[in-house]
Formats: sequence, C-alpha cells, structure tokens
Amino acid sequence: MTRLVSFVSSGPGDPELLTLKAVDRLKRADAVLFDDLSSGPILSYVRSGADLVAVGKRAGRPSPKQDHVSRLLVDYALQDQHVVRLKSGDSGIFGRLEEEITALREAGIPYEIIPGIPSAIAAAAAAGIPLTRRLTARRVQFITGHDVTGQLPENMNLAALADPAASTVVFMGKRTFPKLAAMLCDAGLPEDTPALLAEAVSTPEQNIERHTIRSLSDQLEREIGDQPALILYGPLAT
Amino acid sequence: MTRLVSFVSSGPGDPELLTLKAVDRLKRADAVLFDDLSSGPILSYVRSGADLVAVGKRAGRPSPKQDHVSRLLVDYALQDQHVVRLKSGDSGIFGRLEEEITALREAGIPYEIIPGIPSAIAAAAAAGIPLTRRLTARRVQFITGHDVTGQLPENMNLAALADPAASTVVFMGKRTFPKLAAMLCDAGLPEDTPALLAEAVSTPEQNIERHTIRSLSDQLEREIGDQPALILYGPLAT
Repeated sequence: MTRLVSFVSSGPGDPELLTLKAVDRLKRADAVLFDDLSSGPILSYVRSGADLVAVGKRAGRPSPKQDHVSRLLVDYALQDQHVVRLKSGDSGIFGRLEEEITALREAGIPYEIIPGIPSAIAAAAAAGIPLTRRLTARRVQFITGHDVTGQLPENMNLAALADPAASTVVFMGKRTFPKLAAMLCDAGLPEDTPALLAEAVSTPEQNIERHTIRSLSDQLEREIGDQPALILYGPLAT
Repeated sequence: MTRLVSFVSSGPGDPELLTLKAVDRLKRADAVLFDDLSSGPILSYVRSGADLVAVGKRAGRPSPKQDHVSRLLVDYALQDQHVVRLKSGDSGIFGRLEEEITALREAGIPYEIIPGIPSAIAAAAAAGIPLTRRLTARRVQFITGHDVTGQLPENMNLAALADPAASTVVFMGKRTFPKLAAMLCDAGLPEDTPALLAEAVSTPEQNIERHTIRSLSDQLEREIGDQPALILYGPLAT
C-alpha cells in the first residue's frame, strides 16, 4: 500500500511562520525528510517516534545526491508511511521540487504541496517594506545567484534584471553578487540603486543591512560570512 | 498613547494557510480592518468584542479611498487599540501597503509586517507544480494585469515578460490577458507556451485550468467570470 507524500514548506525559519496546515502535516508524519535550513525548532512539532532524516543541503556545502532523496521518499511511501518532505522557504521556489515529484510520479505515488512563506517575502517584511510599489515597482522577480557549479548562471536576461522599475530578489547570491552588480551597472542600472542584504531571515541571527548595489558589492568582495542570505535590489522603499 | 499596528497577510483564502503568527495577531486584536478577499472563515479567529471593519476592495469593484483606510488605521492606533490590518495573499505583493505605512510613519506610529503566502505561490502548489525548474525556469516574476484605470499598465518590459525561460504570474489579469497575450506573441513568445488559469485559489470554489497562452486568451475573450484569478505562463511543469 502507498501513502500520500506531503511536500511541506517550512517558511524562512521562524516556527511561528509555519502555516496551520504545515503544523498539522508535521504532527501526523511517520517520517520527516528535512533540509538543514528547515530544521531546529520547526522539528519540535514532529511526534516522538517518527523518523527524522536529514537529507539537506546548506549554503556553501555540497548537496547530497538528489537521487538518494528521491529514492528515500519513494521507499517510505511504499511502506505505507506518511512522509513529509520538509523544505525551507516555499518548496516551489528554488527548492529542486520537480526532481522529487517526477520520482513519485514514476512510482505511482500521489503527493500534495503545502505552500509556505518564501524567504524573499519574509525578508521584505522583516525590513518593513513592500516588494511592490504602486507606480515605481510593478514587477517583482526572483532569481538564483548560482547554478549547480556555484557560478552565476549563464544567459541571464539583463533586460529583465537591470530594469529600474522592478524589485529583484537574488537567492543564494552573496558570492556572485559583485559580478552580477558589475553586469547590472554595465547594462545601465545606476550603481546607487538601493540594495538590501538580508541574512538568516526570521531567525535569532537575522541581520538586515541597507546598501546601494555598489556598496553591497564592495562589502561582499571583502567578506561574505556564512549565513544564508538574500539580496534585494531595485526601487525599494526606504 | 499609541500602539503597534500589525499588517497581517492572510494568505490566499484557506484559513489553514494562515501562519501561527497571523492567528496570534488576529486573536489579540482590538480592531481588524479587512479586505473582502481576506474575510470569511479567517475572521473567526478574531475575539468577540473586537471591531471588524470592512475596508476592502474586491476584484472588479471600485476600491474605497485609500486615504480613508489610512486615516482609520491611525485613529485606532492613537486610541491605544491594537489594530490588525488584514490583507489577502502577502501584503507586500500588490497590496498597496506603502501608502498605509507612509501614513503611520507620518503619525509616528510603529508597525510590523507579518508575511503571508502569496496567492501566486498557493496557485502553483494547488496545481501540483513548482514555479522554478532547474534548467528551464530559473527566473520567476509577478506582475499585475491592470493599473488604477483597469487597463494593462503602460511601459511593460516585454524583454522580461516574453522571456521563454521565466515563469510569470499575472495578478488580476483576466480582463487584460488577451491584449497581453498578443503583445507577448508579437515579442516572440510561442503561442503554445503553457498557461494556467487559477481561480479562487485554496477556497471551496477553486478552479485550476491548464491551457496554452493562445487557448486561454481565446477563452477569456469569450468570458471572464467573476472569481478572483491568477494567470501563470511560461515553461511550467505539467
């Protein structure tokens, strides 16, 4: 017999930013496969006796093989266990969700996706600002600052990314931001465009810094630290 | 004496998609100023005796004056009432949050923003798909399908919007989608690009339809219905 697999998005880290539905699924799980970034106090909702399996990646460290995670998911479900696959932020945003869904489909296992607060959304809230502004920021975009090799992705759409009328959030982009910033300025975005560094959002280590693209790029060339971070830039409210 | 104003994001509509922190703020509120789209079962968390004030807009109807809402917020806070300003989805995404924040700042009133599940995120989850895909959809963008006059906004960035490697979510865009779709196709996006219509996401009236840009445009030219909706298009997973 097989069971529904629940992809549960944990939000940015603060357990109070879990949804009621996420808490319900954690409480009812027989096994929870979790990433490091979605661990800590969030796992206190899991009942004692349930399997807790760390499968996760953490910023700057190599990820475990994706195939291995998919196989674990399938194995648990085929043993009639209710598996929760816990992912940080929202699982559908840079969460490698598709690979795991494909594995479940191939095995004929049903799944549900419980949405969560994307870390980009929590970062703006923590900074006290909206991501959209009525006349000046009518488009919001999320990108990742690195591909599987750790470099800035190739073929980035600079017409989209250097648009002075869009708010952009860069995930996992501290290391590559100086290069990206140079590309944006070459494409015409002013170097005094507001930028925000948001580290460890919603956790006790949260650090929010207001910069320009230029000053943030300069700072990250000197030091990047080891906290997971987002970078927001564009016509941000102050 | 003045009190903190809490901007609380209700998520897409299902009360189970509220965060624990949102529920806490609703329970402790002396007054809740809410939009129509964030009403219904969500308001059952408010204690009896608290003021419930509908200030909200609803798709297709004129909005109440924004000034009026801001004045109400300030008045309640100055009377030492804990006000919750409840907004649907995430308040920082097309929620007209900045105007209300500005009014509070001018009056010297502190505020906090509790992030919520954006309806775009909930729509993808309801459709069972991620918004990003590892190689084919590395950029996600949110736009609104109308400006204050109800028309498609001017000066849209077509290089960003007709990018075949980005997932796009159009908020409040049913009425203007045929025009947008024509612009996208003129700019080179294939008319068989996948598109998803997501109406009344996470509510009992939820309706998810899989289309192409062309077939969805044709359908919306014939009929748009009155449910609030999102349109997703791009290299969406199936």
